[in-house]
Amino acid sequence: MSVGSGTVSFQTVRETNLGVVLRTVRELAPCSRAAVASATGLNKTTVSSLVADLMARGLVRETGRASQPRVGRPGVLLALDDSSIAAIGLEVNVDYLAVVAVDLLQRELVSRHVPFDARSAGAEACVRHIARTLGDTMADPALSGRTVVGVSVAVPALIDSPSGTVTHAPNLGWRNVPLRDRLSELLHEAGVRGVPVQVDNDANLGAVAEYRVGSFAGTADLAYLTGEIGIGAGLLAGGELLRGASGFAGEVGHLSVLPDGPECACGRRGCLETLAGIGAILREAVPDRIPDHPLSGDDVAALVEAAVERAGSGDAAAVGALERAGTWLGRGLAALINVTNPDLVVLGGYFVPMGPWLLPNCRAEAVASAFAPDAGGCRVELSSLGLSAAARGGATAMIHSLDAGLLPLPGPRDTEGPVASPAPDTA
Amino acid sequence: MSVGSGTVSFQTVRETNLGVVLRTVRELAPCSRAAVASATGLNKTTVSSLVADLMARGLVRETGRASQPRVGRPGVLLALDDSSIAAIGLEVNVDYLAVVAVDLLQRELVSRHVPFDARSAGAEACVRHIARTLGDTMADPALSGRTVVGVSVAVPALIDSPSGTVTHAPNLGWRNVPLRDRLSELLHEAGVRGVPVQVDNDANLGAVAEYRVGSFAGTADLAYLTGEIGIGAGLLAGGELLRGASGFAGEVGHLSVLPDGPECACGRRGCLETLAGIGAILREAVPDRIPDHPLSGDDVAALVEAAVERAGSGDAAAVGALERAGTWLGRGLAALINVTNPDLVVLGGYFVPMGPWLLPNCRAEAVASAFAPDAGGCRVELSSLGLSAAARGGATAMIHSLDAGLLPLPGPRDTEGPVASPAPDTA
Repeated sequence: MSVGSGTVSFQTVRETNLGVVLRTVRELAPCSRAAVASATGLNKTTVSSLVADLMARGLVRETGRASQPRVGRPGVLLALDDSSIAAIGLEVNVDYLAVVAVDLLQRELVSRHVPFDARSAGAEACVRHIARTLGDTMADPALSGRTVVGVSVAVPALIDSPSGTVTHAPNLGWRNVPLRDRLSELLHEAGVRGVPVQVDNDANLGAVAEYRVGSFAGTADLAYLTGEIGIGAGLLAGGELLRGASGFAGEVGHLSVLPDGPECACGRRGCLETLAGIGAILREAVPDRIPDHPLSGDDVAALVEAAVERAGSGDAAAVGALERAGTWLGRGLAALINVTNPDLVVLGGYFVPMGPWLLPNCRAEAVASAFAPDAGGCRVELSSLGLSAAARGGATAMIHSLDAGLLPLPGPRDTEGPVASPAPDTA
Repeated sequence: MSVGSGTVSFQTVRETNLGVVLRTVRELAPCSRAAVASATGLNKTTVSSLVADLMARGLVRETGRASQPRVGRPGVLLALDDSSIAAIGLEVNVDYLAVVAVDLLQRELVSRHVPFDARSAGAEACVRHIARTLGDTMADPALSGRTVVGVSVAVPALIDSPSGTVTHAPNLGWRNVPLRDRLSELLHEAGVRGVPVQVDNDANLGAVAEYRVGSFAGTADLAYLTGEIGIGAGLLAGGELLRGASGFAGEVGHLSVLPDGPECACGRRGCLETLAGIGAILREAVPDRIPDHPLSGDDVAALVEAAVERAGSGDAAAVGALERAGTWLGRGLAALINVTNPDLVVLGGYFVPMGPWLLPNCRAEAVASAFAPDAGGCRVELSSLGLSAAARGGATAMIHSLDAGLLPLPGPRDTEGPVASPAPDTA
């Protein structure tokens, strides 16, 4: 149940060994070939051959010599080549697309936030917009000359991971959208060939981002909560994603916290989303600013800013709305804590700017309502990854898949690989 | 986070290989030494030596010859030796002790149910009673001449697995009871030496039992609910126990299902236990039979029988009480399903005899209240393991630990091993 488990393994024995050497260089760099041989148990000749292969593919480079070898010639040191490849993560949400590209060292090359009313656009127009945005990203000067090893797309939805199909995205109004296949077609038409596309749930990829690159990186038992119109949770247990038997795990937005409470988009009453989702919060915090039509993407960003501004200036309605939402959130978290006992809950998305008013009640209520003393030691913190968490997690997960041998390695640099060079107009 | 992860590994390379051969024989039996060599990649000489060792330890035996070998001499076939060892699982609950002993094939050798008012007895008297019961079990003729490889004790409690300490057992009134160490002392005093003792949560071991030997064995994403005065859940994800960061996962009895509902022993209101725990059910189903004092072990068994009898004869109060409890149980399950999305929920303990009246509403409410369509495909079924599920799971887990090299293998049969032969009076 780890990230990428839905993908086919492309490994041969040699590719497995290439992955082993790649991971070893990542861990030990700068390091000699001899150190790699010693750490992996592979013999030196094999390591030299594998390193040559990884260098040809632009994944490993030589970086100088060890200064004072005790015995024999100074060994040439190896490091990851951070100049040749990129992985892209894109998140489609109700009101924006977020795109992040990272290099082999998981450092950010590009980060874009594109307001986009995905709900009104409909699935096909949205998929075309995603393809265009990916094309624009690949054409970004920061990716110039790099091979894109993979694209991850995060959606606030139930996903059939093996097929990359969006089964149900209530807040986007999508059902059974074959996102991976359609996106691959559009990229192919635009001249981008051979770039694997993976689709996953936004909360899952947010959790992966927190685990790998967030402020609390390394916390193996954590929950990441998306703070959008809907609330989803990505759950990690022992560093592995908890997806559930059919990918439905983490639907905390629909935990019942108030029987006979407000009606939810899902048809039930009193779901957590109806009391602590961003839409619910805004309706109480800035009631005079709520439009007659359903909240669009542009609306949400502007209204969140207004609500935070009002709360900051001490407006009682705004402060009260945020504090009450914090209490409801804490009650929902208590259920999550009773069931899975995480070490850490990270609040993401629009919860972050609202954090100063949400957190105190949220933490207090979680401790009061959870069975384990002190909520089982669970901390509740704000994400430092903002609205790009899921995109960041997706890009990071692709690099992790590359390391793990779950993605095809890029070909030698002098042959035709899927170098980022889309046709000018991709739609 | 698997069973036994709290135990020290006793493995050397040879013991690792003994475990490999043991598991291979379990899987392939009856099988030749050559087949074991072929399946494991170990050479034939090594396999012969390891098999000789396992035979000396009473774990593997020869079982005849392959009838028609294509080439060469007919090979002698190997099988597990089911005559030499036993593993014991004991559950201590509010109102009974359950004990199960199994052989190497996980077949039941002994099963005992001992009514015992653990709550009134207090921790020390209870631990002494457990030691006595273990002694009696080891003296059972069915275990005569067998080496007891390990004892597992299940408690409805928060457990610190590495130390075997019961951190908090609200329904027993225990706090910080060093159960493993105290029990080891008492067994030692009684002449039982060198038998490893493990302590785990009763719901966790119930889940293990369902996964390994229950009617739905092999279902890797399941929840097992204890049906006692309290309600706990053991959760398996991908066949591994989900314990949480500090062992608190699965506290579903304290999910809030009715804000401002009845007061719970934990001090909160409206916890699932207060509406669907066995005590709560009995107070509504057989109100005239409830004693003035807190329910003792003997009371519970008798009252459950009475409630089921009345419901069976159509008594409206009893039927209504069970049906309402089924609805509350379904509401609690919906939260569990929203968070972890299991394939299967197994209701255990006293829920089993009450099942015919609980299940219809429970299933309907789970489907109505969970977000995923059709509760994410989650079935709700009754356990076939009755009140011995956790004991059975513990005994089974010890055999699994033996296979996995997490327990010391019994010594050669002609040396002094921890053969079951307790002193006559163990307390």
